[in-house]
Amino acid sequence: MSKSNILVVNDDGITAPGIQSLIEVVAEIGTAYVMAPDKPQSGQGHAITIHNPITVKKVDHYEGIEAYECSGTPVDCVKIARDVFFPDVPFDLCVSGINHGSNAAINILYSGTMSAAMEASLAGIPSIGFSLLDVSYKADFTASRHYAAKLISFALGHQFNNSKLLNVNIPNLPISEIKGIKVCTQGKSGWSEEFIESKDPRGNSYYWMAGEFLRHEESPDSDINALGNGYVSVVPSMHDLTAYPAIDELKDINLLT
Amino acid sequence: MSKSNILVVNDDGITAPGIQSLIEVVAEIGTAYVMAPDKPQSGQGHAITIHNPITVKKVDHYEGIEAYECSGTPVDCVKIARDVFFPDVPFDLCVSGINHGSNAAINILYSGTMSAAMEASLAGIPSIGFSLLDVSYKADFTASRHYAAKLISFALGHQFNNSKLLNVNIPNLPISEIKGIKVCTQGKSGWSEEFIESKDPRGNSYYWMAGEFLRHEESPDSDINALGNGYVSVVPSMHDLTAYPAIDELKDINLLT
Repeated sequence: MSKSNILVVNDDGITAPGIQSLIEVVAEIGTAYVMAPDKPQSGQGHAITIHNPITVKKVDHYEGIEAYECSGTPVDCVKIARDVFFPDVPFDLCVSGINHGSNAAINILYSGTMSAAMEASLAGIPSIGFSLLDVSYKADFTASRHYAAKLISFALGHQFNNSKLLNVNIPNLPISEIKGIKVCTQGKSGWSEEFIESKDPRGNSYYWMAGEFLRHEESPDSDINALGNGYVSVVPSMHDLTAYPAIDELKDINLLT
Repeated sequence: MSKSNILVVNDDGITAPGIQSLIEVVAEIGTAYVMAPDKPQSGQGHAITIHNPITVKKVDHYEGIEAYECSGTPVDCVKIARDVFFPDVPFDLCVSGINHGSNAAINILYSGTMSAAMEASLAGIPSIGFSLLDVSYKADFTASRHYAAKLISFALGHQFNNSKLLNVNIPNLPISEIKGIKVCTQGKSGWSEEFIESKDPRGNSYYWMAGEFLRHEESPDSDINALGNGYVSVVPSMHDLTAYPAIDELKDINLLT
């Protein structure tokens, strides 16, 4: 059996410890092809670079692995990897991360990690985004590596019919304290923003986004609850944003002239 | 009855003809409060500005209307409008656009126009993104204004239970040729990217994203088909990306240790 071809991307940049861990996990399972931003790109969501050129440089950070750094967004990385740098590789899987920080609940919308994985899934490639609930550079990825290996092997051995995109979050706990994995729904919890106002050297105001993650009331099936209870959360996700139950509710719109 | 309070945002920038048209429509229905990017921000998706400060300047482009330009992304505009500039305004509605170009089908993911509207809907404000299928600066917004007025009035008079976010696209046709409005599902059609490679003055390669919109096989209920048949499309949308049918399909994941 030939080795699986796995595209590795992230949003924290090519030198982040999270992607180093993920590349090592992938290299033990299949062939890793890496295209990652040349700088941190957190919070980029599904942004793409239309009005400017982007550059790509081959790097030798990971021995024996074909890896590139790209000046664009995480979604740009997926697009240019497929179109220019690995056009002939039939990818079996795309993995993104391991993100330094949670992408549970509403974070999926803002996350470059998850948008990169979604971009690959739009092209029909089953994709998994991994995030550890620890934003620090020195985060301990031991448990994340363990569960990433399990889930990548699972994904390579299964057909994905109803979702080609998994949002995986790992609690910041030692393996011995993690209770297992749970398939979940996307939580409702989100951010309450606050902007800190200050003055630039010329006395003009500027604003810097702060914010607090507010835990809303959550279903027992939500990723937020699973993580709070010590489980790795897996939310099967999709890119069809249609609110189907609203179609009937809004049918009077069809009568407007 | 007091006038409705309507937040107006976009992604093409505060001076774009599309937002000028939308502000004029809104001013006839309620009180417009404007916070728009100070430059074009197409393709920014749900990007937010975390690692840099942003600036906001009051502008007098629109007589009698409180309007600001912001250096951030479309989503930043919604956040800072609510937190800093209009914290005491109880918004009845947020409208975004009118975008110069389609946000039908998969475009909703990349669209700053739709992400701004989604951000407001996350805060519980019913929101509508409007887009005209003409990217030109001199696009004719006559039909768009007509249908925007109809849909804004409809939205202000209805409860939105199953969706607080409408993705409205208007075909590039004179009013007389538009057949009406259709509530639709999100189409599957999307982009096939191609990057054009060239050399910078120092002989290094750079890449610039091009791309072709590929029409996939679409359901008769899709926005793509409605637009192709001369209708204004309205897709009720949501931010819960959970692929519910996949939860049962993936239940074996819960057994992984």
